[in-house]
Amino acid sequence: MVVSGPSGVGKGTVLKHISSFKGVSVSVSATTRKPRELEKDGEDYYFISREEFLENIKKGEMVEYNEYCGNFYGTIKSKLEDLLKKNEIVLLEIDVNGASLVSKKLDCVKIFLLPPNFNELKKRLILRGTETKENVEKRLKQAYIEMKDIYSYDYVVVNDEINNAVEKIKSIAKAESFKVKRRKFEIEEILKSLL
Amino acid sequence: MVVSGPSGVGKGTVLKHISSFKGVSVSVSATTRKPRELEKDGEDYYFISREEFLENIKKGEMVEYNEYCGNFYGTIKSKLEDLLKKNEIVLLEIDVNGASLVSKKLDCVKIFLLPPNFNELKKRLILRGTETKENVEKRLKQAYIEMKDIYSYDYVVVNDEINNAVEKIKSIAKAESFKVKRRKFEIEEILKSLL
Repeated sequence: MVVSGPSGVGKGTVLKHISSFKGVSVSVSATTRKPRELEKDGEDYYFISREEFLENIKKGEMVEYNEYCGNFYGTIKSKLEDLLKKNEIVLLEIDVNGASLVSKKLDCVKIFLLPPNFNELKKRLILRGTETKENVEKRLKQAYIEMKDIYSYDYVVVNDEINNAVEKIKSIAKAESFKVKRRKFEIEEILKSLL
Repeated sequence: MVVSGPSGVGKGTVLKHISSFKGVSVSVSATTRKPRELEKDGEDYYFISREEFLENIKKGEMVEYNEYCGNFYGTIKSKLEDLLKKNEIVLLEIDVNGASLVSKKLDCVKIFLLPPNFNELKKRLILRGTETKENVEKRLKQAYIEMKDIYSYDYVVVNDEINNAVEKIKSIAKAESFKVKRRKFEIEEILKSLL
């Protein structure tokens, strides 16, 4: 499951909640940006150097990657494959470009997380205090560009309240698991009992 | 939402549970077959005469219909339209042919209900005691034919336990309500606050 959405919408918090459920894990992205206070390597991101990131790209080790506000962000192939082997659901927090790339390579469900309105989001971004005013403007402009891709997504979840958003994503995960295309084996087994 | 599945799988019971939820109603089919004990007109079916049914077909008043074991079953257009005006979700219990017809005319989500295995279903059909042995055989043969259409459905729900099946269908209904294509208005409203 791929989760995208504008910066500050609360993707990280929502995914942290969901990752605590059985059978679910969150793919940790790699980035070349500096860790914020309290961010941990291997938990929030794999914080790697620009050199290492470029080397990974060259080796075809990135499932998707993107340069954003001067930093690289991306998903390391081997890390994702490890998670897909171990878990029923793997969540990826990636932007619209990454989502488009991943959905071409893997069977994935794409969710776009939205704020109830963008005034709220501007407040959140400023309150976070980790961004300069210029960066806030930059991120909102980016949000506008990314919003244009929302219609290529499967689902939209409005993050009005964290528990609400988590419940909605849980329903989506549950429902998606009942898709006929994901139950072929079970269907064939049941059909055998009819013969 | 269209629910199909072999005779005896428990479609009626599952739908009765779901119809008690807010915003959900079940479309009542019309049939020319005789009411079983405890069945009520307008609740289980609209029990109408063969003449009236044929007249409805002629007038284009049937959204879908089918002849099955010598009786007609179908959905009356005006009744369905009334429900769609009043409710967020309308459930239709129809067979694979009906489902195929309805999905060509309306935006619908198709769910196939299956028994955990068919041995169980054979037992259920016989226990119901409303069918002759010949009819049981006929219905199982029909089940086999209908199963071939399962891959044109969106979801499969195994009715191992009634509450389980109901919960699964609730998740599907909830998740489907977050589909981007059903949230265009809301998305546009949120996008406006970004401008």
